[in-house]
Amino acid sequence: MNNNKVVLVVGAGDATGGAIAKRFAREGFVACVTRRSADKLQPLVDAIKAEGGEAHGFACDARKEEDVIALIEDIETRLGPIEAFAFNIGANVPCSILEETARKYFKIWEMACFSGFLNAREVAKRMVTRQRGTILFTGATAGLRGASGFAAFAGAKHGIRALAQSMARELGPMNIHVAHVVVDGAIDTDFIRNSFPEKYATKDQDGILDPEHIAENYWYLHSQPRDAWTFELDLRPWNERW
Amino acid sequence: MNNNKVVLVVGAGDATGGAIAKRFAREGFVACVTRRSADKLQPLVDAIKAEGGEAHGFACDARKEEDVIALIEDIETRLGPIEAFAFNIGANVPCSILEETARKYFKIWEMACFSGFLNAREVAKRMVTRQRGTILFTGATAGLRGASGFAAFAGAKHGIRALAQSMARELGPMNIHVAHVVVDGAIDTDFIRNSFPEKYATKDQDGILDPEHIAENYWYLHSQPRDAWTFELDLRPWNERW
Amino acid sequence: MNNNKVVLVVGAGDATGGAIAKRFAREGFVACVTRRSADKLQPLVDAIKAEGGEAHGFACDARKEEDVIALIEDIETRLGPIEAFAFNIGANVPCSILEETARKYFKIWEMACFSGFLNAREVAKRMVTRQRGTILFTGATAGLRGASGFAAFAGAKHGIRALAQSMARELGPMNIHVAHVVVDGAIDTDFIRNSFPEKYATKDQDGILDPEHIAENYWYLHSQPRDAWTFELDLRPWNERW
Amino acid sequence: MNNNKVVLVVGAGDATGGAIAKRFAREGFVACVTRRSADKLQPLVDAIKAEGGEAHGFACDARKEEDVIALIEDIETRLGPIEAFAFNIGANVPCSILEETARKYFKIWEMACFSGFLNAREVAKRMVTRQRGTILFTGATAGLRGASGFAAFAGAKHGIRALAQSMARELGPMNIHVAHVVVDGAIDTDFIRNSFPEKYATKDQDGILDPEHIAENYWYLHSQPRDAWTFELDLRPWNERW
Repeated sequence: MNNNKVVLVVGAGDATGGAIAKRFAREGFVACVTRRSADKLQPLVDAIKAEGGEAHGFACDARKEEDVIALIEDIETRLGPIEAFAFNIGANVPCSILEETARKYFKIWEMACFSGFLNAREVAKRMVTRQRGTILFTGATAGLRGASGFAAFAGAKHGIRALAQSMARELGPMNIHVAHVVVDGAIDTDFIRNSFPEKYATKDQDGILDPEHIAENYWYLHSQPRDAWTFELDLRPWNERW
Repeated sequence: MNNNKVVLVVGAGDATGGAIAKRFAREGFVACVTRRSADKLQPLVDAIKAEGGEAHGFACDARKEEDVIALIEDIETRLGPIEAFAFNIGANVPCSILEETARKYFKIWEMACFSGFLNAREVAKRMVTRQRGTILFTGATAGLRGASGFAAFAGAKHGIRALAQSMARELGPMNIHVAHVVVDGAIDTDFIRNSFPEKYATKDQDGILDPEHIAENYWYLHSQPRDAWTFELDLRPWNERW
Repeated sequence: MNNNKVVLVVGAGDATGGAIAKRFAREGFVACVTRRSADKLQPLVDAIKAEGGEAHGFACDARKEEDVIALIEDIETRLGPIEAFAFNIGANVPCSILEETARKYFKIWEMACFSGFLNAREVAKRMVTRQRGTILFTGATAGLRGASGFAAFAGAKHGIRALAQSMARELGPMNIHVAHVVVDGAIDTDFIRNSFPEKYATKDQDGILDPEHIAENYWYLHSQPRDAWTFELDLRPWNERW
Repeated sequence: MNNNKVVLVVGAGDATGGAIAKRFAREGFVACVTRRSADKLQPLVDAIKAEGGEAHGFACDARKEEDVIALIEDIETRLGPIEAFAFNIGANVPCSILEETARKYFKIWEMACFSGFLNAREVAKRMVTRQRGTILFTGATAGLRGASGFAAFAGAKHGIRALAQSMARELGPMNIHVAHVVVDGAIDTDFIRNSFPEKYATKDQDGILDPEHIAENYWYLHSQPRDAWTFELDLRPWNERW
């Protein structure tokens, strides 16, 4: 094994995951990024390399235990120890509870919670042997309270927060820093641009979150000295109503 | 359809579910109780009948959508409208996050959260057509915060709370009362007697929760006039540390 | 000392405090009610007596330590042991933080929090010698989160909740039941009728809280067996947005 | 008025307040530090100057409205606009609720909450005219929940959190960043060294918080771009039980 430090970002398909990978790559981390289809990761990998960083894209179904185990084994063997891990898969698909299907309720949980458990557990197993590492979860306001039309998403996000809190309490004393970032607001993404143009229009007043600014917090959390670790911080635009 | 009022208790295998069924039966409700194998329900059904009540036991795998749909259709057609519903399946199996299996993490969620979603959704669909009804969830402290060794159980219980809160916010204005009961302490059950004898020994000082006293709160919540509904209340023994 | 059981309601000037006193009086409690000027209490005292109950009105400035000590000494000596205590003084006067005066910020805290501490402490001192009693605080949503224009009121209500929680944790194991009722909605009072007529108009759809229904919960909390005590419950109309 | 940027730290008597002042001074801020007696501030002022910074110590009773108004007027007139403000007065004096005196309950609130209101309000009045600024409060776990023996301290800290949240919601849309830092653990201070030597002994394992590391978070919060502001973050040592 070489001495590279690896950051693994699971759910690097969106702007936030990509920005996290870039941020750590700028600090010399080998950025390993995953999503279901690897070809969509190429622009991100190219962008990191263009900045002089090292990046690797992996197609991985984050919900499949064998795939996750194999992925992490592969990374640790070939590329180096995973020193930082960010779980960033969301699945915000609102629906009335009266019409929510079992299939969708399950899929939202499987993507946004179960895969977080699988990946974080596998990464944690490696980190505890080294007695160091950082595990970061992207949370949402829906992880703090339910809302009409959000039973499935809130359930998954509550589950991730429960996972993060349980892991922080168990693994903190093993020198693993586990943290949960509550993103409360619209992020500057294609999704927001296309689906919420009025919201997107507040961008020039800083009314939507810049993924790079979100990513800065992940780096900050990783950098905290261990006598003063943060478990949870929230992020929202200055003019967001909350 | 007759004019009977039905209470459906899903997860009536333990002391709490049984006590809830009995409590509503005493008020004239037809008690419909379910667990995976119906024969184990017979003592409960017999006990309700011995008190002069009406009770029906159903074998139902609460995690199977078709089974749940069929069960509720059957009850509503044959026995009457479900006016009150209590979801009471737990699955508290602690485990280090480092050793938690995907299978167990999933099963705990499937039992203690997914089946709650399935049953509550099906019941809610009926209740909204009548614009009345009560939906009650048995929660736990693990639904409020994670703990070392409890990632799976806390995840499921957080999910149930997110479901309850989302349903309360969506269905309250349709006159459906949704509530979440946080049980924080050991309950007087065989499990506690056998596994935690020292805890059980505090029974004579009222140090463990009497299932009938828990059940009283479910009845109380159902009885609240709609200008003053409770969404959440906690229950714990007087001498419990919290 | 006789064997009467006393309920002391501090802040019985409004509808809720009065309803609590009436509710306990109906169960045979001697109702002791206080507000700053005793003459305004006469209608309440008369109403309780007209129902066959016993009631006594006391002028007491709940913010003055000597007055509070003297009041409770007087009640315990002449009328009987205070078995239940309800603190019900509010002071919801919104104001921009930019214009909030030191005087008003202090007065709101003094009325809605400090006097709660004084009265509850004095009552608790008596209850612990008897190893029984119930201490109930009227809370509000502002006790759970701050809001624009509500720094003073939220501060006082947060303080009351901190007091209630601290007392519950200290005095629970001495068999004193401490609970906090979060009222989240408009109550059927003259204030709401005069100041928020549109809100008041929802009364015929049960859109505002009936003080008697609130009071029922205080009685319920007092009646809970000690193996299953509630520390906190919320109350809101079915159609309230939250 | 000159173009200096001022940081005002109220409660700079302890290690944390001093470290915050130093941290901002290193970024070119004029550090204005206050406590009741100015002479005790001299070592801090000297230390900042020795590092090449500018610092001014002020004797100010933070609980006296006229003093606070005069202090802030003086600073703004002579030294420059207050761009960042940190409130750091604590008053953690545990006591059984049964023995807590009215005087002490009041004093703890007056110091740890009321003076925070006074100072933050005065600073906010200036900041809103400039439409920028950062207001930071030092919180504690006692601001999130009460505990046996901590009714007074928890009340004050709950009040500060309510203030911070109310101000954040009102002033955020005016471009004022308000944040609350929850310190959950022992800090490296003389107090901990003298009173909790066993705790202090964990310092060489990073078991107590380094004031400079706490201060780094205040600077970080001040530096956040406004599309991604944090309202609340917690800080605790890696091996702290929580």
